[in-house]
Amino acid sequence: MAVKKVKKEEKPVILITNDDGIAAPGIKSLVEAVKGLGKIVVVAPDKPQSGMGHAITIGHPLRLVKTDIYNGVLAYSCSGTPVDCVKLAVDKVLRRKPDICLSGINHGPNHSINVIYSGTMSAAMEAAIERIPAIGFSLMDFSIDADFSASQYFARILVEKMLNDKNGESILLNVNIPKLPVSAIKGFKICKQANAKYKETFLERTDPHGRKYYWLTGEFINYDKSEDTDVWALANDYVSVVPVEFDFTAYDVKKKLEKKWKF
Amino acid sequence: MAVKKVKKEEKPVILITNDDGIAAPGIKSLVEAVKGLGKIVVVAPDKPQSGMGHAITIGHPLRLVKTDIYNGVLAYSCSGTPVDCVKLAVDKVLRRKPDICLSGINHGPNHSINVIYSGTMSAAMEAAIERIPAIGFSLMDFSIDADFSASQYFARILVEKMLNDKNGESILLNVNIPKLPVSAIKGFKICKQANAKYKETFLERTDPHGRKYYWLTGEFINYDKSEDTDVWALANDYVSVVPVEFDFTAYDVKKKLEKKWKF
Repeated sequence: MAVKKVKKEEKPVILITNDDGIAAPGIKSLVEAVKGLGKIVVVAPDKPQSGMGHAITIGHPLRLVKTDIYNGVLAYSCSGTPVDCVKLAVDKVLRRKPDICLSGINHGPNHSINVIYSGTMSAAMEAAIERIPAIGFSLMDFSIDADFSASQYFARILVEKMLNDKNGESILLNVNIPKLPVSAIKGFKICKQANAKYKETFLERTDPHGRKYYWLTGEFINYDKSEDTDVWALANDYVSVVPVEFDFTAYDVKKKLEKKWKF
Repeated sequence: MAVKKVKKEEKPVILITNDDGIAAPGIKSLVEAVKGLGKIVVVAPDKPQSGMGHAITIGHPLRLVKTDIYNGVLAYSCSGTPVDCVKLAVDKVLRRKPDICLSGINHGPNHSINVIYSGTMSAAMEAAIERIPAIGFSLMDFSIDADFSASQYFARILVEKMLNDKNGESILLNVNIPKLPVSAIKGFKICKQANAKYKETFLERTDPHGRKYYWLTGEFINYDKSEDTDVWALANDYVSVVPVEFDFTAYDVKKKLEKKWKF
């Protein structure tokens, strides 16, 4: 029997992206938070891409520009969407599949129905489709100079946990952090996505040439009063952790229709 | 006891949108297919919006322009994404919630993992979030002059079924139609989303100024060999019908993590 060579332990590769753009304080905080846990590579949009959902760029080509914005951390800005960033990183930037993909820290919440619109979460989902464990982080504060210290603290704990999880490859997490100092946060709560939505009210205005235009505005409505949702956890000072999937089949409806609909 | 007034039956309101743009043959075919089933209102993007996923427009306002492109059918072109179109239609164009929202007919398939990237399906999902029964239709043919006659035939059957379904409000369907004449199609098959993905290969080119750029290209890979998937149904000459949901919680992973992860 041949003696097994002792393999030199390779550092985990940590891919980081976001949807607020590569210059946003949130992604800088995330890079700082996980320093030392592995080799960090940043590929993030060159401009804000909030609300881009799972958009990809088909009709025109993409640019990828190396930048030293994070002194010593390998970083590229990309002209595409958050999902494009992950695709380009996996195909063109990294020499091997990363061990984890982190997205964020988003300036503003991505709990409940926001998971659908969020570029932050779509980037993480794209990684998960590639069988890369992934986490999207969002802070409950839209402010450009938000305090990310609690987010950093909890992000590092979770990233360490994921990197040590041998069966982590199927894990995709939507993590939201309350706007509170570390000492006021009660810990993590594993939750389901709250059944909530936005009630849209478009603001109608008239331009200087007499033509109407519309601004999207909306009021958040939570229909879900149960205590195992992300909205509940956040309102009760927990970091919400929702495991997310990309099989969108409604299996219960499938079962019903198979019985009910005869063609 | 007061005698109940016989309410004059109101025609169903059918909202139609797409992601290929208001001038695409696919949406025109869909409008034709459901004529007579209700009052049709079209609100669709003013330009192609394929691959836009669930993107919404936050950073700039939207335009909405009335058009008589469909002689006699109320129609508006919108400067936003497919999801914006549904939001604007519900808030600004329609005086009441539509009875059904139809999206498509898409030029090209939206089965399996495509549901995540597809503007067609995201528009339908946005309607479903508003508790409007919704169907996204896609033909397995990218061609601009594709033959939509089979799609029209099966779309009309399904729309009639949905309009007559009293419990239809929670139903969101992803429907794909094989590139075949009606006579060669075996009927509908209710399916689950196949576990498939794209293997990306970005095409690298150099512009006239010596700078690199990248075109997204990809090879479709189906890992799912089971016979109840949309990919199987389409390969076997059925119209695939996948019930879709917008609660993305991975309940099985949630259960596992609750046991495994102690914080």
